[in-house]
Amino acid sequence: MKSDLDSIMQERNLDAFVVFGSAENNPPMYYLTGGGHVSHATIVKKRGGEALYFHNDMERDEAAKSGLQLVSLGKYDYNALLKEADGDLLLAAALRYKQMFADAGITQGRIGVYGQYDVGVVFGLLSRLQSVAPEIEFVGETREESIFLRAMETKDENEIARIRKMGKVTTEIVGKVRDYLTARDVREDEVLLKEDGTPLTVGDVHALIRLWTAERGAELPSGFIFAIGRDAGVPHSMGNPPDLMRLGQTIVFDFYPAEAGGGYYYDFTRTWSLGYATPEAQALYDQVKEIYDTLNDNFDLNVAFKEYQRQTCEYFESKGHPTPLKTKAPIEGYVHSLGHGVGLNIHERPFSGLTASDDQRLRAGVVVTSEPGLYYPEKGMGFRIEDTLWVRPDGVIEKLADFPYDFVLPMKKRGEV
Amino acid sequence: MKSDLDSIMQERNLDAFVVFGSAENNPPMYYLTGGGHVSHATIVKKRGGEALYFHNDMERDEAAKSGLQLVSLGKYDYNALLKEADGDLLLAAALRYKQMFADAGITQGRIGVYGQYDVGVVFGLLSRLQSVAPEIEFVGETREESIFLRAMETKDENEIARIRKMGKVTTEIVGKVRDYLTARDVREDEVLLKEDGTPLTVGDVHALIRLWTAERGAELPSGFIFAIGRDAGVPHSMGNPPDLMRLGQTIVFDFYPAEAGGGYYYDFTRTWSLGYATPEAQALYDQVKEIYDTLNDNFDLNVAFKEYQRQTCEYFESKGHPTPLKTKAPIEGYVHSLGHGVGLNIHERPFSGLTASDDQRLRAGVVVTSEPGLYYPEKGMGFRIEDTLWVRPDGVIEKLADFPYDFVLPMKKRGEV
Repeated sequence: MKSDLDSIMQERNLDAFVVFGSAENNPPMYYLTGGGHVSHATIVKKRGGEALYFHNDMERDEAAKSGLQLVSLGKYDYNALLKEADGDLLLAAALRYKQMFADAGITQGRIGVYGQYDVGVVFGLLSRLQSVAPEIEFVGETREESIFLRAMETKDENEIARIRKMGKVTTEIVGKVRDYLTARDVREDEVLLKEDGTPLTVGDVHALIRLWTAERGAELPSGFIFAIGRDAGVPHSMGNPPDLMRLGQTIVFDFYPAEAGGGYYYDFTRTWSLGYATPEAQALYDQVKEIYDTLNDNFDLNVAFKEYQRQTCEYFESKGHPTPLKTKAPIEGYVHSLGHGVGLNIHERPFSGLTASDDQRLRAGVVVTSEPGLYYPEKGMGFRIEDTLWVRPDGVIEKLADFPYDFVLPMKKRGEV
Repeated sequence: MKSDLDSIMQERNLDAFVVFGSAENNPPMYYLTGGGHVSHATIVKKRGGEALYFHNDMERDEAAKSGLQLVSLGKYDYNALLKEADGDLLLAAALRYKQMFADAGITQGRIGVYGQYDVGVVFGLLSRLQSVAPEIEFVGETREESIFLRAMETKDENEIARIRKMGKVTTEIVGKVRDYLTARDVREDEVLLKEDGTPLTVGDVHALIRLWTAERGAELPSGFIFAIGRDAGVPHSMGNPPDLMRLGQTIVFDFYPAEAGGGYYYDFTRTWSLGYATPEAQALYDQVKEIYDTLNDNFDLNVAFKEYQRQTCEYFESKGHPTPLKTKAPIEGYVHSLGHGVGLNIHERPFSGLTASDDQRLRAGVVVTSEPGLYYPEKGMGFRIEDTLWVRPDGVIEKLADFPYDFVLPMKKRGEV
């Protein structure tokens, strides 16, 4: 939780941190500020001290909504610095940052670096800063080790309420898509038809999903997946817009909208087959559902998340599928990891990959996905079931939004089939 | 243009570049790949060589749409590297990148660093890489100096067609907002009313703008501004949702939607006063319109863009307003710069700030905004007029979308006023 940041900084031996970028679509900045229309900002915080929010004058009103201590960048005389730097833009920026750090009480120590921003600008800036302020050491971490991902790993009640609300939006839209699909007329060759009698494409469904998301004031900052047939067999294919929607093919609908302005995500997947399923598809779906249910019945708070990835791999191996347990980077069978934390990032701690650290557990306060799947692109099919789960303070694991697990969706109209 | 990248690399003494991040909402990556649902990728290109697109196996289909030479990250044995790195995640990543650079033929030289991504991860990674591959020097640049912003500075016909199309979408939505506002009933106290008779708020208008944008398949990756009264006087205030919409107050509507998936922007502003304007507001609007028109009649291809910023400041100073020419970081009067390039970035080269370099000119192929404004938050008013202009190959400056410049919008219904 946010209140853990200082102690996590201490564990990681950081004296301060700096966050670059805009307040929206930038998880560490959003976490500290609550978002808003602040396009170029910097936050600096000493361990145990207050965060300083450096902002452009034009964005002072938006910055003020954060409740943080504000410092206008207008107070630094950029023209004088540019002259001092003899026209070297990067050096002038470095000299300004040296002043900003000094104003935040930082003239030495280890400073962690965070934020979604232009990586080249920051790399250039920090490289220059280390030469003009050699007592300051800048520290980069992997995402998995980031102090922000560590703090964000456990959520407070307000965060849970927001994620739960996105779960409601998510399942409402998924339900609308299901109802739209099953209400279609169907052509002789099993192709679904739009209201005007022309074939329904994956692209048409994508457009409806985008519209229904916008109508609910949510956004799709990381996209979404609605794919049929072969593309459903490639986990991160978002679906091929010209493809026709047909009966009897697997559809993977992985949907992860977020609050507008870079807020909290929900993450959810269902797999459908319209009208009927082939026996092979039904059998594979049943395996995914079986391990999904088994895991749900057995999650334990004292076990590393990756142990469930191992169990999932072992189950799928026992059914004859390749998995990451015995195959390097498989592209058929079970090809990804079981789940991940969800919050301001669509993928955050705890991670469940086989190489994840042992301290990434299903402890109280985490919000994670469980999403086993099977992928056979050459057979033209793919399967995934995913819900977002909250480990409550009392240790009970609660699914944050309900939705049926039907695989075969009966068509409501009698078409020409 | 993209075809200039190699020669720009040579000018900047770069032997190669690396781009980090996703293919969407990441201008350099989008520029090279055409976008698509590729969430974690790296592109490496030697000067004069072909770009290599390193991608996750799960995203191979989306990556293939780029037409670039693909390399699956699955080919690098991460577990072995992690062992070699003794569990140090950042070192393992650095060792993998060293192999990736070697596969791209890069074992030494100056490599420019680009992309929107986690700045701490990249800073940490590159710092480690410099110790395991000391012959490689990583180079960060300011945005203004970036080879990508230099290449993007001039657009080809396809890019112009896409920006022009966004201009049509932009002005359609602005027209819908205008028509919606002027069709409202008005309460005795000059507050506009919704269909259900309750007061219309800025937040209601924000929601309509978001919906109408989504309906056209466009996105708002950098937000938008629709602000009234005092907030219109703060250039980057996006507007305060609970504020009531009233007659006779200045409304600044700065609207900059982009193609879905991180594509091209359009940038546009109009200032309105509903029903009537106060004489003071009308006089200030007329000044903004006068300098806007004067500039449009006098843009010259052989003059630095910042010279027009200077002219604009001089005009406003002559009318008694503070400007950046004589006041450091003014917050009243004319408080920003005249314009900027528009493309995959909402703000890109050429820039027009008084400290911008002389080579940022209105040369053939650039797309820029012209957006003079005046801001008096304490008086509860602000003004800006903005269009997006293309300097055609024949040197003619063409506005890419038309929309009327009316300041006072007459209300269509007879309300209770």
